[in-house]
Amino acid sequence: MASDVISSERVEGTNVYNVAGDKLGSIDDLMIDKQSGQVRYAVMEFGGFLGIDTDRYPLPWNMLKYDTAKGGYVVPLDKRQIEGAPRYANDAVPDYDDTYRTNIDKYYGL
Amino acid sequence: MASDVISSERVEGTNVYNVAGDKLGSIDDLMIDKQSGQVRYAVMEFGGFLGIDTDRYPLPWNMLKYDTAKGGYVVPLDKRQIEGAPRYANDAVPDYDDTYRTNIDKYYGL
Repeated sequence: MASDVISSERVEGTNVYNVAGDKLGSIDDLMIDKQSGQVRYAVMEFGGFLGIDTDRYPLPWNMLKYDTAKGGYVVPLDKRQIEGAPRYANDAVPDYDDTYRTNIDKYYGL
Repeated sequence: MASDVISSERVEGTNVYNVAGDKLGSIDDLMIDKQSGQVRYAVMEFGGFLGIDTDRYPLPWNMLKYDTAKGGYVVPLDKRQIEGAPRYANDAVPDYDDTYRTNIDKYYGL
């Protein structure tokens, strides 16, 4: 882990935990600003079974902190926050336009 | 394509062409700055057969321009530049430390 970079393939599939250590889900995908190459959202997968009928939660990248002990990302969100969080079904990916992105950021107080 | 973001899953597998329109390879992976979330390199796969014995070429993200007509990325590199470019075998991913990153950037004149 000496390197300052991480591959997208390693990020995808990494578990996401809350501060209490409960697993919330795992990273399925990253949403990247086309122009700048900045990762804006890590899309967390949760629910369903073997990837079927799972929901996708776009989490602002800056909210994720990697925890080497847990081997996963930790986000400062409680269960109630996740339950009300922006989400979509895997077969209904929204257009990540300004409005949608503003909604996500507002929800997380950014 | 109205959205300003693109998913890592869509970038992975996208073809890379030179300015003349020749296919150079395809994107296999992205190398992301852990702290900032900035994509530093798109790792191009080339050679081999069905993913076996292919080489990986880390290309600075800023060098890739998406061409909607081609449905892929275009990089301003000729064959000779690619032949001499930094590369590694898939089973020998180097540590992307400062030295390695500087070598890549220098090779591409960045």
